[in-house]
Order: sequence, then structure tokens, then C-alpha cells
Amino acid sequence: MYKNITIIGDGAMATACSSNLCSKGFSVTMWGHNASQLAEIEKAGENFLFLPGFQLDPALKFDSDDASCMRGAELIISAVPCQFCGSVWKRLKPFLPADAAIVSVTKGIENDRLLLPTQIIETETGGENPLATLSGPNIADELMQRLPASASAACEDENIARRVQQTFTTPWFRVYSTPDVIGVQVAGASKNVIAIAAGIIDGIGAGDNAKAALLARGLAEISRLGKAMGADPDTFAGLTGLGDLVTTCISPKGRNRSFGEKLGRGMAVSDALAETNSVVEGVSTCDSVVALAGRLGVEMPIAAGVQSVIKGEMSVDEVIASLMSRELKSEKI
Amino acid sequence: MYKNITIIGDGAMATACSSNLCSKGFSVTMWGHNASQLAEIEKAGENFLFLPGFQLDPALKFDSDDASCMRGAELIISAVPCQFCGSVWKRLKPFLPADAAIVSVTKGIENDRLLLPTQIIETETGGENPLATLSGPNIADELMQRLPASASAACEDENIARRVQQTFTTPWFRVYSTPDVIGVQVAGASKNVIAIAAGIIDGIGAGDNAKAALLARGLAEISRLGKAMGADPDTFAGLTGLGDLVTTCISPKGRNRSFGEKLGRGMAVSDALAETNSVVEGVSTCDSVVALAGRLGVEMPIAAGVQSVIKGEMSVDEVIASLMSRELKSEKI
Repeated sequence: MYKNITIIGDGAMATACSSNLCSKGFSVTMWGHNASQLAEIEKAGENFLFLPGFQLDPALKFDSDDASCMRGAELIISAVPCQFCGSVWKRLKPFLPADAAIVSVTKGIENDRLLLPTQIIETETGGENPLATLSGPNIADELMQRLPASASAACEDENIARRVQQTFTTPWFRVYSTPDVIGVQVAGASKNVIAIAAGIIDGIGAGDNAKAALLARGLAEISRLGKAMGADPDTFAGLTGLGDLVTTCISPKGRNRSFGEKLGRGMAVSDALAETNSVVEGVSTCDSVVALAGRLGVEMPIAAGVQSVIKGEMSVDEVIASLMSRELKSEKI
Repeated sequence: MYKNITIIGDGAMATACSSNLCSKGFSVTMWGHNASQLAEIEKAGENFLFLPGFQLDPALKFDSDDASCMRGAELIISAVPCQFCGSVWKRLKPFLPADAAIVSVTKGIENDRLLLPTQIIETETGGENPLATLSGPNIADELMQRLPASASAACEDENIARRVQQTFTTPWFRVYSTPDVIGVQVAGASKNVIAIAAGIIDGIGAGDNAKAALLARGLAEISRLGKAMGADPDTFAGLTGLGDLVTTCISPKGRNRSFGEKLGRGMAVSDALAETNSVVEGVSTCDSVVALAGRLGVEMPIAAGVQSVIKGEMSVDEVIASLMSRELKSEKI
């Protein structure tokens, strides 16, 4: 197990990780890009900005100094929004300990280079450090309540995957291991796009039959994308695929689903975005997913429909009518 | 398309089928095993017993005579609860037209012989008639409201599958076709067992992370069972697998989920069953699924846990603790 841990980021997922890891008695330090914001969180003893209502573990340390936060770290958790991942790692790279492992908990695909989070980190850091990702159906505030949850630790190196698995496991948090770094990240990113569509279905009151069909067909199209990117198709039927997709599409707390619900109720895209405190990852991920699908020749009608709605090119009703009236065919992945 | 259609059964799904098929101008007759009950439904113009609140199509005909209801039928829809399927078809067999196709919409596995609905019908009728099944995320009262929905028509004979597909398709009901008769039925039956577990999760307030993990691991174990029975594993990632599982586990209306929720809240099994008007298919299906898993050597810890709770052998808390504390391992189907 890794016992000296630095968390890069001060958002909801960073906070939930800190709670889990502090409970095991590890030495855990949180870093934030904005020193005064981090100091305020430390002073409040609560992440009132991104995960209000929970006391932070008294043993959690805070350090916004790029050099000292990295010193002695055996494991570094990368927990920044995807579109900032490149700039953060460019900044931190000079201080990265040579033998520290990095585990990304970011879900998204970078717009400019169409890179997955571990690919961004690998590009920015040179790829010498062991690199893993942890993902699953993990609504942060349920983790803080220590409600039962599960995730997958993915690393091509099985020993690192196991070590990450053992580090994060608690009696209420069950971690599996897998070598499929690509699949886990494609699933974790793309589900936010399908969640926007699920929110739209909720917003227009189309019912649970329609929502289930959307999830099934949505999972089929993100599986196709994953397969084209080299993922193991089985990953999409698991915790990080189906599991995470389900949570994100049914939880009333999900930002992406809630954003979609507002669109379904007729709110303008800009107003719906303005009402959200955190980043709605699905919006930028949608552009990356559609671009990757185009590049790889993968059919993704739901993601394309979500993009059309966000860009104002089609109405919600037009997109649903076009999805329902596609040529009758046999069901395939 | 089939235009002369007889529906065997007067439950919620039989009623939803009648609405869809009458809307296309077909000649549709509903048969019920209890003549006076069927007459009351006809008189009311509403299935006040099993799907109240919706007017039946004025063109729907009713006939409780075993011989005359079958006369001239090109398509016979078998829509009776699974445990009655054998006795109903034993009774109707003498009147079955030689060339009529049968499509089963029943979801379950017979306890005595561990047979799927089409296998029961095949056994009772001699297997000379074309035999298909239609399944999917289809909550009956959403179908009555003509909210968008989808399903799969499964038949080994592709032409029959297509004909069933075309018969049921409407602008609001999208039907796919598949040859996987076994997979579609294993998925449709087993999801009711997982739905009881999902209801338990809701009842104890374990949260959406836990529910998503349950769905992912539940789908994995019913896929394993399907594979051992000869199904195509891809079926479980589709509409009739994942899709139907999701609807059944999230819809507040689902009988199996609601039954589980009552158990999660501490209600006794007998009281929870007594509160339900219709058959809770998942209870009897659970016994069949666990028996099949034992016979085929398939590990199904969630189904076994649900059976233990129903039989009063373990408490809900004991089952959850045992599922969460299983040996840490890699995630696999």
C-alpha cells in the first residue's frame, strides 16, 4: 500500500479521496492551484465550495506549494478537471518524484489533443512514472457518508493496479483491478455525455422505458468508441461502464444529468451552465467524443444529438424524433 | 405483418400489447382464463384490475372460449405469468391453428422443470408452430401513454423475428430483432431477481453508488448464467439485458423493486407479498435462477443472497456485509 499520498486538486472527488485515505491512517496532503482558496478550505475544515456539509478529516494536510507538496509522495492522485489537467501537470512536472506512482481520478477527454487523462499526464510528465486510473460509480457525497461503493483500479502493470486497489479499499469501498486503462477512461468520460441525454429525457418527461433504452443504446455507442480506441469491450459491461453510467443517469445529484434536465425543460444552454457551480464535464467531453468518433469512423447518434442540442442546431424534440425513426434493424453493439 | 392476433392473458402486459396492436388497425382478441373476470374488464372498457386508469381500445375484442378465440389467429401472444404458462398451454393446445406463430411476452423461469417461457410452450404444444419472444424495458403504463419505448423480437428464424418486429412497431415503439431466444428470456427473467435486491438497497438507503454496483455485478452474474445456458453474451449489454434491468431497478412502479424496498425497510416477506395485487415474478424466478446456477456451476452471489433473505435465512445486513467483504479480485464477467 502507498502511505504517503498527495492529492492534486481540491474539488469534490479530491475531497472524497482524502476522507477515504485519511480513515486508513495514511499521510495525506491536498494541493490546490489557487493558494487562497485552499487556505479557506483548510480554515473552514470543510470543502464549502465543492462538497459542502462534511467535516474534513482533521489529519488532512494542505499545501499549495508545488515543490513541497510533492516531496516524499509515494502516490499522487490527479483530481483536476480534464481541460486543466495539461496545464497543471506542465506546472508540477519539475517537482515530480522519480519513483512516485500517479493515479488519475479525472473523467473527461481533452478537447485540443483528444487525449484521455492518463495520456495527458504521460505526455506532460514524460511517462517515466507508474500511471494508473481509478474510476467507478462514485458520487462524492455518498463516499463521504461511507455508504457502500465500488470502483476499479486500472493499470497495465498488474502490481501497481493491486497496490492502488489495496490503498483505496476500506470496509465500505470495494476496489477491483483491471489492466484496461483505455476502456475505464473512455467509459468514465463518455458516460457524462449520455447523462446529459438522460437528463433531457427526464426534463421532457419521456419516462423510464425511454431512459432505459437510452442507457442501453448509449452504452452500445460508447462501447463501440472504446473498442475502436483499443479498449476491452467487457469493461463497458462492468462497474466503470454500465455501473458508472447508471449512477450518473439516475442520481438527482449528478451535474451532467441535472444540466440535461434543464435543457429538457426548455432552459437555454447558457442559462443552464450559469446555474452550475462546478464544471459540467459532459459539455466539453461531448465535443471530444464526437470528434474522436468522426476520426475513427464510429457511429454515435446519441452523442451527435447531444452536441446538436448544445450547439442549438437541433431542438430536443427533433433529436428524439430522429433517434426513434432510424431504420429498423437488428440489435448489435 | 400479422393482422389477426389473439392475446392469451388479461394482465398489464397483455393490455399494453392490445393497445399497441389495435392502434395499427389489426383485428385483436383478448382471452382470459377466468371468463367472468374478462367479461368485467370488457364491460368496464378498462383493465381496472391490472392496469387501471387507461381506456381500452374500442376495437379490442374479448373471447374466453378456448376454441373460438384461436380460430383464424395468425399470431398468438402468450402473456400469462410464468408459473401458469404450462397449464394454460396444456388447455389451449387442442385449438392451436397449425400455422399460427406464437410470441411469448412472459418473463420468468418455471420452478418445476426450470424451463423458459418458450421452452414451456414448445413442450406443451409439440413445437410445430413458429415461436418467438418479445422483451425489453416496457413498463406497461408508459406503453399505454405512448411514451417512447423499445424492445427486441427474438426468434431463431430471422423471417419470423422480422415479421414480429414489423407487427409491433409504431412511431413510439421501436422494435429490434435478434436470434437469441435464450439470452433475451434469461435476461428478462433474471432481472426481476436483481430488482428485488435493488429495492432492498433503496429500502435501507444505501445510495446510488451501491445501487449502480449492484446493477453492474447483477448484470455480470445473469450474463454468466445466460452464457452457461447457451445465450449470446452481447444480449446482456443490450435492451433486453441492461435496458430492462435498469428500468426495473429504477422505476418506482416496478413490483419487484417495490417488494424489495419493503423488505429493506424491515417488512416481513409475507406482509410484503400480501400488499401486492399482481404476481411478484422475481420471488419464484429467484428459486429457479439459483437452482439453474447450481446445476450449471455458475456463481451468483446476489441471487443467492436474495433467496436467503426471502427464505428468512439471512438478514439484509448480513447479505450486504457478505457481498462487500468477498475476496478482493479483478473485475470479470
